[in-house]
Amino acid sequence: MQSYKQSALVLIDMQRCMSQASSWPRNNPEAEDNMARLLTAWRANNQTVIHVRHLSSDPASGFRPGQSGAEFQARFYPLPHEHVADKHVTDAFSGSGLEAYLRSQSIRELVVAGVSTNYSVEATVRSAGCLGFITTVVSDACFTFARLDLNKKICSAEKIHLMSLSNLDGEYAQVLSTDAVLKS
Amino acid sequence: MQSYKQSALVLIDMQRCMSQASSWPRNNPEAEDNMARLLTAWRANNQTVIHVRHLSSDPASGFRPGQSGAEFQARFYPLPHEHVADKHVTDAFSGSGLEAYLRSQSIRELVVAGVSTNYSVEATVRSAGCLGFITTVVSDACFTFARLDLNKKICSAEKIHLMSLSNLDGEYAQVLSTDAVLKS
Repeated sequence: MQSYKQSALVLIDMQRCMSQASSWPRNNPEAEDNMARLLTAWRANNQTVIHVRHLSSDPASGFRPGQSGAEFQARFYPLPHEHVADKHVTDAFSGSGLEAYLRSQSIRELVVAGVSTNYSVEATVRSAGCLGFITTVVSDACFTFARLDLNKKICSAEKIHLMSLSNLDGEYAQVLSTDAVLKS
Repeated sequence: MQSYKQSALVLIDMQRCMSQASSWPRNNPEAEDNMARLLTAWRANNQTVIHVRHLSSDPASGFRPGQSGAEFQARFYPLPHEHVADKHVTDAFSGSGLEAYLRSQSIRELVVAGVSTNYSVEATVRSAGCLGFITTVVSDACFTFARLDLNKKICSAEKIHLMSLSNLDGEYAQVLSTDAVLKS
């Protein structure tokens, strides 16, 4: 990325219930602060900000529309002129109109942050790369949760996060820190 | 998956140069034999087989059209009536017409095998799940390669493979062995 000033900021799934989405430990406790730094910088430069919102059809999900958990967290609430892309699966490009919106705005470069790294962030960045968008993932402005792997062994959030970013790096996107993005 | 007899088999990137695609060690040396078992079973039942072929626009790539490396490996050569989906990125649903083909054939269930687990297989299975296809990934009929992670540490092919399947399991697909698929 030569300068982030050509890019749209894409914040993924920063809704209220994401802060209680898992009883498993998470990584990157500073991720929300870094996302807020990115958001402040984008708004200060009058650049495009896109808020991706997950809406679930599962009655048991905190992301079901109409529940307080599905609302944006206070510090990531969209401004009236900012675009909200609603999705129902992990990939923000699937059935959301996001690609059409980006093409209509002649946006070719994306800076992506949010949660969780190995689900919605990774799925969205893979699609962004495959669709030809020049994409940056902000490593310390994403986070994920520990879980059991396929062999029922505990896998830490940090290991999952690192593997996810390693999949993305060079193949679909570049991976940079918040500081590196804001200095560019 | 209740029975594989409702599913299309999707074999990903089983082209000649994939056998020399990396100087890094791979996992699952039996993967090709398992793919061949799946292919034999699908053909014996006159079920749909789809061959995904990677064609690169990079002049230095072995997957560039017209080179012998871009041809299918002999044991995975498509029969004349079998569909070939050409792709230029990792996700076999991106710009390939694959979704339209599947919808036109009323195919709703997929069994996916091929290479490499964390790139083309994972990207394709994530999209399949997001698009609503009922998808099975065959754990021992996929493989990948070791690599350096984002921190420049060596990560084994088996660790990468396991993390990839753990991302897919339950969220985008179910993960089964070749034996389990063929017994279903």
